[in-house]
Amino acid sequence: MGKGLLIVVSGPSGAGKGTICKELAGKADIDLSVSMTTRKPRPGEEEGKSYYFVTEEAFLDHKEKNGFLEWANVYGNFYGTPKKLVLDKLEKGRDVVLEIDIQGAMQVKENFPKGIFVFILPPSMAELRKRITGRGSETEDAINLRFNEALREIAYIHKYDYCVVNGELDEATARIQAIVTAEHSRVTEDIYDMIAAYKKEG
Amino acid sequence: MGKGLLIVVSGPSGAGKGTICKELAGKADIDLSVSMTTRKPRPGEEEGKSYYFVTEEAFLDHKEKNGFLEWANVYGNFYGTPKKLVLDKLEKGRDVVLEIDIQGAMQVKENFPKGIFVFILPPSMAELRKRITGRGSETEDAINLRFNEALREIAYIHKYDYCVVNGELDEATARIQAIVTAEHSRVTEDIYDMIAAYKKEG
Repeated sequence: MGKGLLIVVSGPSGAGKGTICKELAGKADIDLSVSMTTRKPRPGEEEGKSYYFVTEEAFLDHKEKNGFLEWANVYGNFYGTPKKLVLDKLEKGRDVVLEIDIQGAMQVKENFPKGIFVFILPPSMAELRKRITGRGSETEDAINLRFNEALREIAYIHKYDYCVVNGELDEATARIQAIVTAEHSRVTEDIYDMIAAYKKEG
Repeated sequence: MGKGLLIVVSGPSGAGKGTICKELAGKADIDLSVSMTTRKPRPGEEEGKSYYFVTEEAFLDHKEKNGFLEWANVYGNFYGTPKKLVLDKLEKGRDVVLEIDIQGAMQVKENFPKGIFVFILPPSMAELRKRITGRGSETEDAINLRFNEALREIAYIHKYDYCVVNGELDEATARIQAIVTAEHSRVTEDIYDMIAAYKKEG
């Protein structure tokens, strides 16, 4: 079927994009993108599976060399998606799913516009508030802040190709699988090689 | 999920588009578009199911009033896709599949660019020749004519959104179902109503 696809799964925090991506990578023949970070490993985290753990020097060197599809500094730790790892997989025909917040997705869109951009919506704002609250240990102010942030983020939806409402996990996952199947059937420039092969045969 | 989609399934004769459409209408919640024709009904054909059988006068009147998504004169008989019937179904949220040759598909694209245009390819040119030959009762010249016509038609593929190879009927049908699911998840202008509803709720 030719080259692999980069599926960027994004949305406000609390929409459930992480759960969907894990489900997707487990069910379908899709690889999860692994980030590089300067954060210290937590118990149970595996090098090359959870993250690639690197020094700040190594990270900044990678960044300097334009080696990231996107990167961010979160509370003093760097996180980034290594470009080469993703592109190598796509070249080999593997589909890759990348879970990322909206700012990160916009960076990926800039660096790799061929990606398939999927926005995950919570089934309702009431449900989103419940999910944000349900994480516990946060103050009312912090919850309101996250909630308003989510509202602002939803306005970015028009920058995306697809929008999937995460009501039932199975249904949302199946919908993204359908999107991947459909995108593999898109008429793109590669089609001309295919036509040439047909004509030669004919 | 909003309005229905018009899925235009097209391709060279012998690609198997008719079989796919019947399979699709049987499996998925999709209606087959019914054409209007001036041809006389054949035994077993049902009014409103196989075709809408009309007089030439009625057909030309309909055509005069711009009432077709596409129409053609084939060996002295008129055939056309009534616009209102299709649009009414879409408005009610029903998906409609329209099986049509390439010339017809290009007319539909002109009149209804929002349609989803799917090109059906045979698995190989050898298989296409076999299918054309397999219909029997045709001379070598007629077969060659159809075969070369198919080659010319394949060049229209770049006007389509999707391309599905009809190797296994089940797989090709599932692929079109995935395309329909994906297209229902597309971010379109309707999304703004959805966002407005979210914000109101928030």
